[in-house]
Amino acid sequence: MATFDLVIFGGAGDLAQRKLLPALYYLAKDGNMDPSARVLCIGRRTYSDEDYRALVADACRERLDSTDLSDEVLGKFLRHVHWVQLDATGEDYAALAAHLDDAARTRVFFLAMPPRLFAPICESLARAQLVTPDSRLVMEKPLGRDLKSALEIETRVGAVFGEQQIFRIDHYLGKEAVQNLLALRFGNTLFEPLWRRDTISDVQITLAEQVGAEGRADFYDQHGALRDMVQSHLLQLLCIFAMEPPISVDADAVRNEKLKVLHALKPLRDEQALENSVRGQYRSGGINGEAVRGYLEEDGIDPNSMTETFVALRAEINTWRWAGVPFYLRTGKRLQERLAEVVVNFRPVPTNIFGGGRRSPPPNRLVIRLHPQEGVRLYVQAKKPGMEMRLKRVNLNLDFADAFQTRPLEAYERLFLEVIQGRLTLFMRNDELQAAWRWIDPIQQAWADSGLPPRPYTAGSWGPSGSATLLARSGHTWHEESDETA
Amino acid sequence: MATFDLVIFGGAGDLAQRKLLPALYYLAKDGNMDPSARVLCIGRRTYSDEDYRALVADACRERLDSTDLSDEVLGKFLRHVHWVQLDATGEDYAALAAHLDDAARTRVFFLAMPPRLFAPICESLARAQLVTPDSRLVMEKPLGRDLKSALEIETRVGAVFGEQQIFRIDHYLGKEAVQNLLALRFGNTLFEPLWRRDTISDVQITLAEQVGAEGRADFYDQHGALRDMVQSHLLQLLCIFAMEPPISVDADAVRNEKLKVLHALKPLRDEQALENSVRGQYRSGGINGEAVRGYLEEDGIDPNSMTETFVALRAEINTWRWAGVPFYLRTGKRLQERLAEVVVNFRPVPTNIFGGGRRSPPPNRLVIRLHPQEGVRLYVQAKKPGMEMRLKRVNLNLDFADAFQTRPLEAYERLFLEVIQGRLTLFMRNDELQAAWRWIDPIQQAWADSGLPPRPYTAGSWGPSGSATLLARSGHTWHEESDETA
Repeated sequence: MATFDLVIFGGAGDLAQRKLLPALYYLAKDGNMDPSARVLCIGRRTYSDEDYRALVADACRERLDSTDLSDEVLGKFLRHVHWVQLDATGEDYAALAAHLDDAARTRVFFLAMPPRLFAPICESLARAQLVTPDSRLVMEKPLGRDLKSALEIETRVGAVFGEQQIFRIDHYLGKEAVQNLLALRFGNTLFEPLWRRDTISDVQITLAEQVGAEGRADFYDQHGALRDMVQSHLLQLLCIFAMEPPISVDADAVRNEKLKVLHALKPLRDEQALENSVRGQYRSGGINGEAVRGYLEEDGIDPNSMTETFVALRAEINTWRWAGVPFYLRTGKRLQERLAEVVVNFRPVPTNIFGGGRRSPPPNRLVIRLHPQEGVRLYVQAKKPGMEMRLKRVNLNLDFADAFQTRPLEAYERLFLEVIQGRLTLFMRNDELQAAWRWIDPIQQAWADSGLPPRPYTAGSWGPSGSATLLARSGHTWHEESDETA
Repeated sequence: MATFDLVIFGGAGDLAQRKLLPALYYLAKDGNMDPSARVLCIGRRTYSDEDYRALVADACRERLDSTDLSDEVLGKFLRHVHWVQLDATGEDYAALAAHLDDAARTRVFFLAMPPRLFAPICESLARAQLVTPDSRLVMEKPLGRDLKSALEIETRVGAVFGEQQIFRIDHYLGKEAVQNLLALRFGNTLFEPLWRRDTISDVQITLAEQVGAEGRADFYDQHGALRDMVQSHLLQLLCIFAMEPPISVDADAVRNEKLKVLHALKPLRDEQALENSVRGQYRSGGINGEAVRGYLEEDGIDPNSMTETFVALRAEINTWRWAGVPFYLRTGKRLQERLAEVVVNFRPVPTNIFGGGRRSPPPNRLVIRLHPQEGVRLYVQAKKPGMEMRLKRVNLNLDFADAFQTRPLEAYERLFLEVIQGRLTLFMRNDELQAAWRWIDPIQQAWADSGLPPRPYTAGSWGPSGSATLLARSGHTWHEESDETA
């Protein structure tokens, strides 16, 4: 493993503390961090290395599974970590330059900052002559808030870093279950003949959160669920699911196929956008038995905000493989459960040979679960024991944790390793990003033009009732947890 | 449930004691035996009802799971059972006629006797005027020892009973897992697109026994594995597996489709038969750590016998769905395990996108297990957790007993119920039987013409080495238990 200097902008921020540093702990634990590697965390506050390390230690203790924690590993990991006091929005990068004293080392600049700062920071890095040929830039979504702002960021960032140096993170692509979706599709002959409009009735992608807008209210209120979640995570999952077989798993082979899916998305504009989308905004309600405030009462939210905290979309992909198959996308805050999954509903059997006036057996379903408990479940009809030919649903289950008895990599852990090794497969390319915004913008525009507010929903529900109606029009229903035990 | 008189010819015999009467116990236990129903067991010996019932009680206690046994149910069941002393090969059926005093009741004549007695018994029943319009005849395989003898039996039996009254038992068709094969194929959309030559590389049907020829040596030596097992069980499983979707599960709809498969079997004659078959005969060896004799040393076996105790065949079905896909059939006595299963090997992925010089992932496999522990297992490649895209086999399992927490019906229990209800779906039709013999006879003839003896194999092995060679010619290997833990 080559050594590296990893520079995290926003080192005292939420993302760094909750995700990045705990992920780096695992890197150290699993021997993936060269003894000379450095993690330089940047922020405006005054910390000594010791103060900051104490903060990181607390974050690790809070976030990590206790069976993975050891004081010895933690101590070893913290010796890599340094605090660099620097106002990233300022011009003076001397404090950082003082640390980056070895131009031969791989440099990774990780921008855990609001997107409006991406371009200025890159320009400051260039001015301070800190960008070497072996430097890499990691940016967190959302990259802009529309195509125009994204292009502006890209143009300015692209003047400093080449496309091969830019790692646009969508941490869903780092999840083991998403990797496994590739493995299932292309490591087996079983699925490919089924993976098409002839056999599949509809596909549902749900990323449901229980948290509200708290913590980053100001940022969230300017973006909303469509920009924050659909443009990135949901469309990326859609692409991985729906793409044609790539010729290899090399970065551009995979990204070319994903791009084709984005280009094939049927545009949703004006009436089409309004008909095929449902916006929601949560009102007060209850999550896990605790009362929670409504979105408009959250600290830092404009009480007249029209920002959506829920969105459901009916997308279509105009390819030979998928034409006519609805892809339902759904995400929201303050929903009933924390859940991330892709559900594939197969078409019903063409005729019921078991007949006798009995109902056709319910169609097959494949559920690829990303959270909680990553796994794959296949719903199959089998015969109930006994004289009569009565069918009953049984599940063929694959629980990755059970199956392999290994801790799956954390998404950020995998992504850090990929960045350090310079592998771009799991990161979005510039043209993907633009294609995603190109599809998203007209929907946002149609909502704005309509002048209509998002529909209210109770915190702790599954969103506004329009979400169910959106599917009902095509005779479909959302897969909900309660189905599984039916 | 209508009442009935069930007459079992061979009431003191092995089949009646081991299988039929224990299955009837379950019928009584589950309330499927009308209080007035009678089970009349026929044989030459002198028993009082009490003596015979004691014999049946012992058989039940020995055969049944202790959790299913209750003295109360057993007592209730035994009251249905009567012994009728009668020489079935003789002409005097008065003793039976004395019991069959109600011509309005459904009569079921179950011939648990050697096939040479089928026609004479039917003729005696006719002479004694015991065959009513609501009488049914149940015959156990093998029905004859070749097409000629089968036709003779059928002609004579057919003069007494109509085709709709004749239930030719192949008890494999009564197994829950075989029923489930129908449910899986036609109750799901998942399997049908895969069930064809485009995706399936080869199919293997194995019925392996650990027992030798003991007990029925004389009978077995005159038949051998091809007539005893392939002509019946193996071809029936093949038909159920390979048939086109029937328009319903009614008897003739299913039997018409099975018949089409038998007619489409590529004939194996002369050289073709020798090339595509392997005969074996067991020598002394060990089963489960115990030494056992060779076939030629068994009591009642001609020491120069050329009878095969093992057979492996490579069959092909000339239909659009299956042309070119080898169906490997294998059965034998004194094999390593007692095992009954259908294995479906899928084709490998067309190209390995995970590449990097790595081997293609092993192909998918579906195992439908009939014995022991009925269930379905699907072998799928999934990604091993970790940085690299490494695939590893995982199993999606469906264990019927686990899934349903219900005792599956015993094969004979189901078949009795079907007979009593007059449903013919699970029984072979006359034309199926003839088609099976028509395919079997030339193989038997080719063996006889060759003058070659069967190849020896060690008891406790998987048969002669030629069995592996038969598959190796097409690049295939038998699925063996040890694969499963690999």
